[in-house]
Amino acid sequence: MMPDRDLQYLAELAAQLRVDSVRAAAEAGSGHPTSSMSAADLMAVLFACHLRYDFDDPDNPANDHLIFSKGHASPLLYSLYKAAGVISDEELLSFRRRGSRLEGHPTPRLPWVDVATGSLGQGLPVGVGVAMAGRLERMPYRVWVLCGDSELAEGSIWEAAEHAGGEGLANLTAIVDVNRLGQRGPTRHGWDTGAYARRFGAFGWHTIEIDGHDPGQIDYALGDACNTRRRPTVILAKTRKGEGVLEVENREGAHGKALKDPGKAVEELGGARSVRVEVHRPEPGAAPFRFGSNGMKAPSYPVGEKVATRTAYGAALAALGSARGDVVALDGEVADSTKTETFGKEHPERFFEMYIAEQQLVAAAVGLQVRGWKPYAATFAAFLTRAHDFIRMAGVSGADIRLVGSHAGVAIGEDGPSQMGLEDLAMMRTVHGSTVLYPCDANQTAALIGEMADLEGVSYLRTTRGDTPVIYQPGERFSVGGSRVLRHTPGDRATIVAAGVTVHEALAAADGLQADGIPVGVIDLYSIKPVDTAALVEAATTTGNLITVEDHRIEGGLGDAVMDAVSELGPRVVKLAVTDLPGSATPQEQLADARIDRHAIADAVKRLV
Amino acid sequence: MMPDRDLQYLAELAAQLRVDSVRAAAEAGSGHPTSSMSAADLMAVLFACHLRYDFDDPDNPANDHLIFSKGHASPLLYSLYKAAGVISDEELLSFRRRGSRLEGHPTPRLPWVDVATGSLGQGLPVGVGVAMAGRLERMPYRVWVLCGDSELAEGSIWEAAEHAGGEGLANLTAIVDVNRLGQRGPTRHGWDTGAYARRFGAFGWHTIEIDGHDPGQIDYALGDACNTRRRPTVILAKTRKGEGVLEVENREGAHGKALKDPGKAVEELGGARSVRVEVHRPEPGAAPFRFGSNGMKAPSYPVGEKVATRTAYGAALAALGSARGDVVALDGEVADSTKTETFGKEHPERFFEMYIAEQQLVAAAVGLQVRGWKPYAATFAAFLTRAHDFIRMAGVSGADIRLVGSHAGVAIGEDGPSQMGLEDLAMMRTVHGSTVLYPCDANQTAALIGEMADLEGVSYLRTTRGDTPVIYQPGERFSVGGSRVLRHTPGDRATIVAAGVTVHEALAAADGLQADGIPVGVIDLYSIKPVDTAALVEAATTTGNLITVEDHRIEGGLGDAVMDAVSELGPRVVKLAVTDLPGSATPQEQLADARIDRHAIADAVKRLV
Repeated sequence: MMPDRDLQYLAELAAQLRVDSVRAAAEAGSGHPTSSMSAADLMAVLFACHLRYDFDDPDNPANDHLIFSKGHASPLLYSLYKAAGVISDEELLSFRRRGSRLEGHPTPRLPWVDVATGSLGQGLPVGVGVAMAGRLERMPYRVWVLCGDSELAEGSIWEAAEHAGGEGLANLTAIVDVNRLGQRGPTRHGWDTGAYARRFGAFGWHTIEIDGHDPGQIDYALGDACNTRRRPTVILAKTRKGEGVLEVENREGAHGKALKDPGKAVEELGGARSVRVEVHRPEPGAAPFRFGSNGMKAPSYPVGEKVATRTAYGAALAALGSARGDVVALDGEVADSTKTETFGKEHPERFFEMYIAEQQLVAAAVGLQVRGWKPYAATFAAFLTRAHDFIRMAGVSGADIRLVGSHAGVAIGEDGPSQMGLEDLAMMRTVHGSTVLYPCDANQTAALIGEMADLEGVSYLRTTRGDTPVIYQPGERFSVGGSRVLRHTPGDRATIVAAGVTVHEALAAADGLQADGIPVGVIDLYSIKPVDTAALVEAATTTGNLITVEDHRIEGGLGDAVMDAVSELGPRVVKLAVTDLPGSATPQEQLADARIDRHAIADAVKRLV
Repeated sequence: MMPDRDLQYLAELAAQLRVDSVRAAAEAGSGHPTSSMSAADLMAVLFACHLRYDFDDPDNPANDHLIFSKGHASPLLYSLYKAAGVISDEELLSFRRRGSRLEGHPTPRLPWVDVATGSLGQGLPVGVGVAMAGRLERMPYRVWVLCGDSELAEGSIWEAAEHAGGEGLANLTAIVDVNRLGQRGPTRHGWDTGAYARRFGAFGWHTIEIDGHDPGQIDYALGDACNTRRRPTVILAKTRKGEGVLEVENREGAHGKALKDPGKAVEELGGARSVRVEVHRPEPGAAPFRFGSNGMKAPSYPVGEKVATRTAYGAALAALGSARGDVVALDGEVADSTKTETFGKEHPERFFEMYIAEQQLVAAAVGLQVRGWKPYAATFAAFLTRAHDFIRMAGVSGADIRLVGSHAGVAIGEDGPSQMGLEDLAMMRTVHGSTVLYPCDANQTAALIGEMADLEGVSYLRTTRGDTPVIYQPGERFSVGGSRVLRHTPGDRATIVAAGVTVHEALAAADGLQADGIPVGVIDLYSIKPVDTAALVEAATTTGNLITVEDHRIEGGLGDAVMDAVSELGPRVVKLAVTDLPGSATPQEQLADARIDRHAIADAVKRLV
């Protein structure tokens, strides 16, 4: 049953969305008009009849969330914004131009966009996170995700299907624009919406197959999604790419380019219009639920005790969760190893078991921060590489998420290379706007976990599996971008720069060298990004010789961060890091074999000075 | 119907596998005995009745392939090797010790292991690649993959399910050890094998649900898999973790550790045995099919012409495919952009459309190289981050695969940051044993694509979207690890080191500086790893000032490779690279905004000298 808006109006609105998509891409000389045209009817009905969103107040916590997982349909999204009256036709035609907010793919530079999309298969998993937040906040908003059919080949879509189905996230609706054509040709399943319905159905979703150009069917399906309990809904809409323009409609070779004859296309679509869509505002209601404090005390460890930094992470996060109601934690089915379980036991209602699905783990964190939560997501450092593209896009989104990678380096010992995080520092350093931290003791870990809570962007903390001696006093503050000079005399012949497990090796080496009459400095560079340039420049200037030592591959980690900081001064820098492929061995054997233990450090100093 | 081996024998063999798993882990003091014990019956029946493998000749091309996707069940795998008579009991007990081939997780240091596993969700996608090779080679071998139930949460499993189901890879069988318990507790679906059967069934697989401790049911299921046409088979076997030992059987908290009382456990299992398993040898048959040559000529481009390096990649790969019958190509549904389509048109039978599933894309390449093929796999450089963990593990496996990432850097222009490969050089440099190449013109690209064919390990070539001038003669050779000095005079005040698109900016800057009376050298560092240390040291020594410029984030790329090469000399190095978040703009605007264009380079030189 149609609501009060009539079919004629919806057809006119959809036609305008197509016209404006064609015009925007024509003006830009590039973009994806045909992928926009296939979904125009779907979005016209959503905006006119079902979306609850206050465009005057994008921060209204009762607003629905709309994510274009098929981010390349940005001309459609921007045309919708124009129809909603929040951007002008002039701004629409700035599409893809330098300085315009209307980028090739949507980013949160626009106040109505939650997250950047454009890397396919990411919008739905992020939508799962936003839907999880809705349940946590006891808020009735809905999450609508527009997906392409091509992106359903991404495994991350099925991680999302599994989590949303398993959790019964009924506030989540995926609308799949099954236009049959990918970038270079037909998809595997073409218009066989049943193939997708069987898959989503098997993962526990409510499925609806419709004609995506029939406003009545669309309206029914969207309403059905709203009325479905205990299950997420997927609407599988059969559409035609480039719908409405003969030059491109349902034709191969028409992906990702402006139309050849946009004037004719606009004419074919019935010409330009000035249809407005009044999107329904959400009902005013209760504020989002937040947790209170239960006053649990931050952990502290006596100097000299041996404690794994992963243990301190778990305890500190649990304490932080007590102090702050906005902190949430997620883990990838290894919470007993990462020690997120400490938080989980203390705050079970704010702990999310994401199982072994690292892409969904990170995406859920991104979705939760959309709603103002402070997520910490943990797994083995090695397995965060599984979510690299999600972390990269979180950086593009400017998302405030905190990642914790345990079992860093060869120091894990016997488990072997598949379990060793040896590339994580390099990966995290390249993320736009990221912070990278690598503590060496339990008190420092606890302090940095606290610091991360208010950091902007993607921040990362690396923990160690084995116990390491506590060297810092409980309660000592460690600022992001800082470092600690642990050994220093005016006669230092070189300075060893270390972090994490190698700090303890560096201290032992320095003590041995001191006994041999070779004084050296030691810097604990716990903040790998931003890096303490002043301290490194000071060390480079006074000793002229830097030795970096890290339990990470030689490329892209601590050593490179140090070199980057001092490169314009030109000190001699020797990097000690993992260069070979480790096998199984004890932690101490591994450090020795990788030539990053106390003996290797001492040897390197002696060769250098 | 059971074959000639009787149930008693199979039970004895399985008991021995459990006993040996317990003993190996006990001796190591770590490992995963309980995850081995659940799958012992499954593997006992497979080895005794269905596997076709010549342990005396692991390179026999008719051998079946067995992949432990649940690599942590390594004690079971090694116990099977002992039962098959290829390792001694003494070697079994070297498990996880330094220098032992029996690592914590299997690696190809063992001649019977195709690929390293241990990062979950990878064995099945790699198995898909091995099965694809079987079809290509017209060989009747089967691919058996032992999966855990926990790892079915990984999206990569469903990329594999989609591809194998879509292609109807009947030579592939997944055996899922549904032992109900993950690392830190129950899986989402517990013993509900129907939940998994519905999922695999929806993806087009033949599904069988059995009691995984009943040899008769196992034998029937394995036989049924062999007899199933046109569809891959998944056997969903309900098992008990730690089966046979009360201390751990079906209990939480017993994952990934040696048993507390191994002596008692061995007794409970009936004591040590010396059962041997005679694995059937494969039938001798025809040699694997390989393609012949059709004599297509390598492309060549006149100096001065403007050609995109991606275009040259496609043409060169097509020519290489003509010259060599062992070259195959894969693409992630963007072959019209990467230009792999040129190969696809020339050699359709050797081109694999993997759709938008980058993990399966890389895993298929790994699987194909197991069988001696030379795979080239391409997608946008940005989207290779999606497969980071697979690339990392390919490095651990020592797999010979070739990756090509297109649309590198801000130079792509209007599409914006989601589509820009800006982290790929850093990611690829950290991979163990990797080669990283970044050509600047079409002839260089063609030459390097040829060089890659015989490289060992993971190699990567980065291409550019836009046209760049041809500066090298057709047919010129470019060795891996080399570089080209493009400008040099004895009076050089500095040396600019560039690669790819920035080579042309560097040349323009050098010409302008020369006109201003500031001679500078220019090096084309097309081989980022290994890097031409000699040339860089020479430049650093003669001018003392290096300026690196790259269309990549400032962390982990060309600049860091250069600094690494010269760090012990201490020249001044200024790095120009992408530091901000780009938006949409034209390619030339992007280069200017990122301060990596000719003007920014000239400015940097002037500041430095």
